[in-house]
Amino acid sequence: MPYVNIKITREGATPEQKAELIGGVTELLQRILGKNPATTVVTIDEVDLDNWGIGGLPVAEFRAAQAAKAPPQ
Amino acid sequence: MPYVNIKITREGATPEQKAELIGGVTELLQRILGKNPATTVVTIDEVDLDNWGIGGLPVAEFRAAQAAKAPPQ
Amino acid sequence: MPYVNIKITREGATPEQKAELIGGVTELLQRILGKNPATTVVTIDEVDLDNWGIGGLPVAEFRAAQAAKAPPQ
Amino acid sequence: MPYVNIKITREGATPEQKAELIGGVTELLQRILGKNPATTVVTIDEVDLDNWGIGGLPVAEFRAAQAAKAPPQ
Amino acid sequence: MPYVNIKITREGATPEQKAELIGGVTELLQRILGKNPATTVVTIDEVDLDNWGIGGLPVAEFRAAQAAKAPPQ
Amino acid sequence: MPYVNIKITREGATPEQKAELIGGVTELLQRILGKNPATTVVTIDEVDLDNWGIGGLPVAEFRAAQAAKAPPQ
Repeated sequence: MPYVNIKITREGATPEQKAELIGGVTELLQRILGKNPATTVVTIDEVDLDNWGIGGLPVAEFRAAQAAKAPPQ
Repeated sequence: MPYVNIKITREGATPEQKAELIGGVTELLQRILGKNPATTVVTIDEVDLDNWGIGGLPVAEFRAAQAAKAPPQ
Repeated sequence: MPYVNIKITREGATPEQKAELIGGVTELLQRILGKNPATTVVTIDEVDLDNWGIGGLPVAEFRAAQAAKAPPQ
Repeated sequence: MPYVNIKITREGATPEQKAELIGGVTELLQRILGKNPATTVVTIDEVDLDNWGIGGLPVAEFRAAQAAKAPPQ
Repeated sequence: MPYVNIKITREGATPEQKAELIGGVTELLQRILGKNPATTVVTIDEVDLDNWGIGGLPVAEFRAAQAAKAPPQ
Repeated sequence: MPYVNIKITREGATPEQKAELIGGVTELLQRILGKNPATTVVTIDEVDLDNWGIGGLPVAEFRAAQAAKAPPQ
């Protein structure tokens, strides 16, 4: 009877990948906690990059800042 | 002062149906728990079918599997 | 297949009231949108007063401020 | 390590405003609770007006009702 | 950078089981979607039985009703 | 009319700190987006350390692993 909500950035996850995620999470809950897959609900929210922040910055800016900090190779 | 979040699959709920749902939930909270409707907030998330899983499958596959299991009539 | 999350302040809702809320919300989703009650999940979060804010104040302070503003009777 | 979810009505918040919100909330959590900005995640949900209810009404109807109640000036 | 929230009924999941769940979900997101485990956040909500409804009933009543419907063996 | 949910680990945030957080977030939404504080709702979830994962580990294990990796001083 679990309910799982997965939030990811909207960056082109395919229906196949999302199906695999749904199946994988449901299987984990059955294997680890004995939860009934029939009533396990999983929802996935794909969030626009502008609407996701980490490190105090929107994702795109955060990634640019991380890249700028990386040493040259 | 309650906050209610309703997640449904995105399958054409009309503005009238959503208004009825908002009014109905708000009325329930007032009648059962005495909550003030003026500060009761309801949000509805309509979730794409690919992003909703039950029984370890995305909704469309789940429904197809259920239909295949149903006895002929 | 809907999922509903209801957040209320923790102020003594009884198991009977919560059962009535669960039944009522499930019935609304069936009546208005034709959703199957068998897979409708409802969770209720009871939130401590210190952890709920409205009008920029924790609930207890908000209520005190509202009461202070009310005209004498 | 905090996680913050902000739900607002979808009414044209700009990327700059959303970036300011992400930065501001992250800074608050650092200043008040000493939380590490590097692992503070903020997501913003912009909700269609039809999907947001207050006072038992969808937002647009609620605003119209409030405006109708306001005294003439 | 994903955020995952898992809601289960509060029925004695051990710290070891919850650690396994956290590790498993994080690994799934890395394997299927290439998400960085370092910034994957998972939270688990354990919900009291009175506060979880399915089929229009609190969990305990739902289970009793299911058991009563099961054929004798 | 915004709704904000803040999840933090349960590690002794005081009522005063939570009140400051509620006031601060409400003020940000007013200043940046012009949102009405009177209908801004903020809830805070304090999550047990066992129930919070990052980097594929429960928080306590994650912190121990980080500390072990830090260079001696």
